[in-house]
Amino acid sequence: MRGLLMASTERDAIEQQNVWNVGRIAALVGGNISGDANTMVTGVSGIDTAESGDIVFAESDRYLETAVKSNAVAILCRPDQSHTTTKPLIHVSEPRLAFLKLLSAFSPAVKPEPGIDPTAVVAAGALFGEGVYVGPLVSIGEHVKIGDRVCIQAGVHIGDSCVIDDDTILYPNVVLYPSVTVGKRCYIHAGAVLGADGFGYAPVGNMLQKVPHIGSVRVEDDVEIGANCCIDRAKTEETVIGAGTKMDNLVHIAHNVKIGKCCVIVSQVGIAGSTTIGNGVILAGQVGIVDHVNVGDGAQVGAQSGVRYDIPAGGRFFGSPAVPMARRLKEISIKNKLPDIMKEFRGMQKRIQALEAALHLEATDSPSAADATEQPGASES
Amino acid sequence: MRGLLMASTERDAIEQQNVWNVGRIAALVGGNISGDANTMVTGVSGIDTAESGDIVFAESDRYLETAVKSNAVAILCRPDQSHTTTKPLIHVSEPRLAFLKLLSAFSPAVKPEPGIDPTAVVAAGALFGEGVYVGPLVSIGEHVKIGDRVCIQAGVHIGDSCVIDDDTILYPNVVLYPSVTVGKRCYIHAGAVLGADGFGYAPVGNMLQKVPHIGSVRVEDDVEIGANCCIDRAKTEETVIGAGTKMDNLVHIAHNVKIGKCCVIVSQVGIAGSTTIGNGVILAGQVGIVDHVNVGDGAQVGAQSGVRYDIPAGGRFFGSPAVPMARRLKEISIKNKLPDIMKEFRGMQKRIQALEAALHLEATDSPSAADATEQPGASES
Amino acid sequence: MRGLLMASTERDAIEQQNVWNVGRIAALVGGNISGDANTMVTGVSGIDTAESGDIVFAESDRYLETAVKSNAVAILCRPDQSHTTTKPLIHVSEPRLAFLKLLSAFSPAVKPEPGIDPTAVVAAGALFGEGVYVGPLVSIGEHVKIGDRVCIQAGVHIGDSCVIDDDTILYPNVVLYPSVTVGKRCYIHAGAVLGADGFGYAPVGNMLQKVPHIGSVRVEDDVEIGANCCIDRAKTEETVIGAGTKMDNLVHIAHNVKIGKCCVIVSQVGIAGSTTIGNGVILAGQVGIVDHVNVGDGAQVGAQSGVRYDIPAGGRFFGSPAVPMARRLKEISIKNKLPDIMKEFRGMQKRIQALEAALHLEATDSPSAADATEQPGASES
Repeated sequence: MRGLLMASTERDAIEQQNVWNVGRIAALVGGNISGDANTMVTGVSGIDTAESGDIVFAESDRYLETAVKSNAVAILCRPDQSHTTTKPLIHVSEPRLAFLKLLSAFSPAVKPEPGIDPTAVVAAGALFGEGVYVGPLVSIGEHVKIGDRVCIQAGVHIGDSCVIDDDTILYPNVVLYPSVTVGKRCYIHAGAVLGADGFGYAPVGNMLQKVPHIGSVRVEDDVEIGANCCIDRAKTEETVIGAGTKMDNLVHIAHNVKIGKCCVIVSQVGIAGSTTIGNGVILAGQVGIVDHVNVGDGAQVGAQSGVRYDIPAGGRFFGSPAVPMARRLKEISIKNKLPDIMKEFRGMQKRIQALEAALHLEATDSPSAADATEQPGASES
Repeated sequence: MRGLLMASTERDAIEQQNVWNVGRIAALVGGNISGDANTMVTGVSGIDTAESGDIVFAESDRYLETAVKSNAVAILCRPDQSHTTTKPLIHVSEPRLAFLKLLSAFSPAVKPEPGIDPTAVVAAGALFGEGVYVGPLVSIGEHVKIGDRVCIQAGVHIGDSCVIDDDTILYPNVVLYPSVTVGKRCYIHAGAVLGADGFGYAPVGNMLQKVPHIGSVRVEDDVEIGANCCIDRAKTEETVIGAGTKMDNLVHIAHNVKIGKCCVIVSQVGIAGSTTIGNGVILAGQVGIVDHVNVGDGAQVGAQSGVRYDIPAGGRFFGSPAVPMARRLKEISIKNKLPDIMKEFRGMQKRIQALEAALHLEATDSPSAADATEQPGASES
Repeated sequence: MRGLLMASTERDAIEQQNVWNVGRIAALVGGNISGDANTMVTGVSGIDTAESGDIVFAESDRYLETAVKSNAVAILCRPDQSHTTTKPLIHVSEPRLAFLKLLSAFSPAVKPEPGIDPTAVVAAGALFGEGVYVGPLVSIGEHVKIGDRVCIQAGVHIGDSCVIDDDTILYPNVVLYPSVTVGKRCYIHAGAVLGADGFGYAPVGNMLQKVPHIGSVRVEDDVEIGANCCIDRAKTEETVIGAGTKMDNLVHIAHNVKIGKCCVIVSQVGIAGSTTIGNGVILAGQVGIVDHVNVGDGAQVGAQSGVRYDIPAGGRFFGSPAVPMARRLKEISIKNKLPDIMKEFRGMQKRIQALEAALHLEATDSPSAADATEQPGASES
């Protein structure tokens, strides 16, 4: 087709929006530069995850040291901090506030102009705050309440009696079943489903009868939920996602799960019914957790682990079934040595045979027949 | 924003719908109470999964004993059953029928008024039964046939030549590719995709050429399919989900899989192409099953297991790769003891060295050099 | 309901489209038959995945031998090839081209008539090629560019500034966030989400602050993406899916991942941020790969494996954590023997005790107290 490539001037204009150097950033945050003001900055990130091109912030000397060693190309710090690094420093009185300002500056402007698209289907009783955007082909049920500056993108469905608080964004094709509540400043990514029935049945004769799930889902403030995640409604009461928790794509949260505040739940994690997750918990990718267990505050669970029992606060667990990280690493270490150990083991058997022969002793316990077939020398004892 | 919280009278009215006590339940089912008629009941469930607040049913004395020990707060039983428990019993001639009545009474009224929303896009040739609901922004293709009382919620897409039988509910944004058939009384949750092409390619030169998938998907009666599940169409013939089977969220079913009746498939399970699952099989969360194997009737597979070979009827398998449960538990038990066993093992080596020294024997098989570095005493032999 | 079953003549007509025998196929590709021209053919496939009823192609004698042993019922080969098999051969000068012709002949006609459905919501600035189909209830943003013969099915959302190249199909309810580009001849299945924000946060005080993701997603030519897959946009630059790569359902691809050409990525795989996958890599179902690793060209990773380190080109890895296949199979073999080895081990302990008793030696290292409780005979030494 013709015209598939952008005109170069158009593309230049778009790219220019994201071209920053240290000088431009210092001007934005009102800071003073030590080092090269022309260093290009392409992104903003935390110190631990900094890539080449990123700017980070460091409020303590320890963090400044870490930041210097990271892949970051520029660092926001306090006026009284200094370092021999060749990386440019931008000195500001409040590095944290400057950093938040930069996060905003680098964010794409996702919010469209307020207004309700004429193709949206909105029930008569729905209540809207100020500055709300409702995109094309959205459907909104009865008794729904939408806060200020909420952004509801194309194809979203909001069931009856849902409540969405201020400044939250629902990306395209999100589905909220009835009575789900979502807090302030949340991001719910495309295709996520909140409030589907929990997975519960009662055996009656030869059939599994569906058990009513009349509870709901409550998502607190500042939560992010990844694309195509599924968070089931509670049997009674609420499934809860605590304030500040971040959830990656394709995560499954079953009925009556309670997740605490500021947790990090990586992609494809599955948490079974009625399990409780504390605050500040980190669950790495593809972790599975059975029903009715407790994971304590600050616990960390390694990728692909299978959690079958409670994890204490601060515990670092790994493996399937999950055990304390140190023990799991020991297990892996032993597993790696097993082939060599097996050779030693066979050698020891021969040495014992030699000792027994020297002493003219009968073996007190002969190898099993099954084993003998694998061990040619056994019949010689 | 103002008005985000419901008026208290409104909320009270809604909550009151779900407030039950034993007296009200006994009146509904026509039963006689032994015990406290004021005990509050908040839900209905099977004995094995009962939570505090639930009512359960027990038709035999053995189940009554189990029910008494469960978290349930009230029990439906026969007139001739009795127990010393403090939990209230409701005696009815048919506890099972009374239980089914309660399941209905506690279920939320999900079905909207029949009718086709004016924003739905329905092909001219589609056929509808009685009492059908078609929500806003639904699209329905050519030659589609919809049974009586089917409920098609907002944003659903139904491809050409699909058939949906009586009393089935499709939740928002479900997608049926062409020629999918769904039985009676099914629940297909939001975002589920039925009938996408199977994952099959033929290498031709350096490219993978897409192989045609001209089969379909058939979902039998009384099936529930979780949110964002994916069930692929067959290459030829049908991918089949048997009657009464229940599937949790984010499950993947590949082309030509045949699943039997009344299976329980927990979240994030993946089943590869042409595999056959018997009747009454239970697959726990995140299980993976390779292609072209058979899982026998009544088999159970533990969470996160990886099934690579056939499983016999009634088998209980666990682990990755999956082995019989008893063997897997033995393996885990040995794995847990390995660090201690390693200490013993090193001790035995020293004892053998001491024996050899006492007898002035040469070691018949010396430890490997690699091992010697990990075992300081080895050079002393 | 009445009329739920198709009239038999209607069904016959539909089925007849897919009824082929060897004679009809030979006529289509202009080939000569050795064997039974009446053999029925129901599908087309690669040799390795052939099922009963399939036709395959074999350009070399080695492949012809494999094809004869496969489940295929008929084989396309060169005029100069022959075999004693009872399977019919169809001889053509270019078996590969004949095979491609058959693939097309067996494919369902998925493409509807070109045109834009009146219920689609298309921004004024969107540009369309020739022969484009836009289904009902689609929404297309500003500055979008759509190539020739692109097929955009019901309920799809295409964000601002996306580019979709010629002959690509987007199935129902696919979501493209802004600035995603998709190449020629791609299939993006229902519910897939391309371009959601990467999962990245910077800790600021007690909160996790969302890090801007201003990069995009680029899908090259001839890619297939399964239903409900999630491919996140890059932090800066692009997340890339290389030409010819095929991806099954429910796969998660994190921000800044680069996938090479002609890879096969089976269902429920998850790949974490900034990881690089070479060309021709095969990742089996439910594999997880951590961030920032490299998987070399032609590597193969077994189902449910957890990749934590780089994999060299051509490596075959398996297990969680993943190790070379040969080593993993050795580990499994040893694991399977451990119960028997434990019995031998206990026998060796007794033999050493007997030797020590005979020599009147003290044990140089006694078993631990913990162990003694599990080993009744220990106290007898």
